[in-house]
Amino acid sequence: MRLEVRVELKPGVLDAEGESVEKSLGLLGIRGVRRVATAHVYDLEFVDVTPAEAHRRAEAAVDRLLANPVIHRVTIRPPPD
Amino acid sequence: MRLEVRVELKPGVLDAEGESVEKSLGLLGIRGVRRVATAHVYDLEFVDVTPAEAHRRAEAAVDRLLANPVIHRVTIRPPPD
Repeated sequence: MRLEVRVELKPGVLDAEGESVEKSLGLLGIRGVRRVATAHVYDLEFVDVTPAEAHRRAEAAVDRLLANPVIHRVTIRPPPD
Repeated sequence: MRLEVRVELKPGVLDAEGESVEKSLGLLGIRGVRRVATAHVYDLEFVDVTPAEAHRRAEAAVDRLLANPVIHRVTIRPPPD
């Protein structure tokens, strides 16, 4: 089974890449974009584990490797496609 | 309105970060992960445009700034939350 771990910046944390993209879009003449927020996604494919166990392991991966709780907000869900 | 642009690597293109995460999870003792694929997400917030026009502008942003058609596969959709 697959689980998607989505790592975003918490509100109030500067999203430098998002701000850079927003500015660049304006310079390219692509108007009407008020805000750009970026996120990083890790699509984890598990084998030989139950869905509940996969979720626990995804949470362990987040805690130990993929995110920093001081600045990141994390969502774990099945992938959209 | 908001649109989410998801930029992934095409099948066959080396996902070095994904491979690195997969290896690190193994070293941390988090087992059962067969594959890790990474993606980058840009959440674009549009103002004063119709949904159809927002979609066109998001496509323009992808073509001109956010993705490389040689290596990237792109999905544009409303954000999940």
